[in-house]
Amino acid sequence: MDLRTSPQTGDRHDTRDRIVTTAARLMQRQGYQSMSLKQIGTEAKVSAGSIYHFFPGGKERIAVDAVRHAGEEFATFLAAAMAVEGPAADVIEKCARTLAVHLEESGWMDGCPLTATGLETAGRSPAIQDAVAKAFQHWSDIVERRLVADGIETGTAADLAATVVNALEGAEVAAQISRDPRPLHLAGKHLATLVSAYSRS
Amino acid sequence: MDLRTSPQTGDRHDTRDRIVTTAARLMQRQGYQSMSLKQIGTEAKVSAGSIYHFFPGGKERIAVDAVRHAGEEFATFLAAAMAVEGPAADVIEKCARTLAVHLEESGWMDGCPLTATGLETAGRSPAIQDAVAKAFQHWSDIVERRLVADGIETGTAADLAATVVNALEGAEVAAQISRDPRPLHLAGKHLATLVSAYSRS
Repeated sequence: MDLRTSPQTGDRHDTRDRIVTTAARLMQRQGYQSMSLKQIGTEAKVSAGSIYHFFPGGKERIAVDAVRHAGEEFATFLAAAMAVEGPAADVIEKCARTLAVHLEESGWMDGCPLTATGLETAGRSPAIQDAVAKAFQHWSDIVERRLVADGIETGTAADLAATVVNALEGAEVAAQISRDPRPLHLAGKHLATLVSAYSRS
Repeated sequence: MDLRTSPQTGDRHDTRDRIVTTAARLMQRQGYQSMSLKQIGTEAKVSAGSIYHFFPGGKERIAVDAVRHAGEEFATFLAAAMAVEGPAADVIEKCARTLAVHLEESGWMDGCPLTATGLETAGRSPAIQDAVAKAFQHWSDIVERRLVADGIETGTAADLAATVVNALEGAEVAAQISRDPRPLHLAGKHLATLVSAYSRS
């Protein structure tokens, strides 16, 4: 399609994207429940009419797209973190420390983008819950590939990757609530020990 | 104090306790944000006047007590789980499996009682956030004592206990969202491997 014949296309995409990225940021900071369409509109500088135009399914539909967006964004971070050279154990420990730096730099506000939303919607919104579960699985797949590249057998690597992702997530929650990087530092250290134990066997 | 001279005392305690335990249950299932005083009143069968009488500080003050209550309740479960005979590694793995059973039996609704509330109030309600942080620390202390009893040096045990608690919490979130006990089973297995590695060294 020649974009010159459709001068509004760029704006349309911009507006839709702005709604989704704004919702993703709000959900990271406050979860799904307390986020309102009005708040999305104000923060994204989009009218209520525009929001309903792009998302006739309302807040839940926006949230599904926002979860996908946030899931992809964190996947990009994780893929870059896993691409660092060195043994997988060291790479995972470094990743945990980077998460701690990001969290502290955000004033302890920007933790896991999906945990609060996932818990608030579990058993209430299958569409959002499913999107969160898929994002977790995607993150786990990225870590799994890094472990396999380090010589860990596929099945073992998949199991271990799930624990790495979940333990980092739990440590991020603890770090955010205690406003202390230490839970993430410890998780990094212990996950490195764990991965080393499997790398050797 | 002779309770016979104050026939209402028992009822007063019952009413206050019912408000706190109802709020704790609601916060476990839906977090803090979406819980309303009206909902607490309806579920606890307590009038709005009674709620304001016992908690002039409103919802936030109820939540602080509810967090303490839920924290103590889980501490009791954890202490019992850690009192099981056998090596600490096996005990922790069994504990993870028991958590998975409880979660599944609740229809995937009753996960960690404090995670959603902690995340929703982080940076917004220092009183609730502090109560959640203290509960996490208390749980960690319980696991630490078990590791020390197994011969792990105190400082190492404290660090390891924090990771055990946080990894179980992260795995519980993943299990709840994916409606699958596997993340908790894997966390149990991997934490057992990790604790064994420290027990041997």
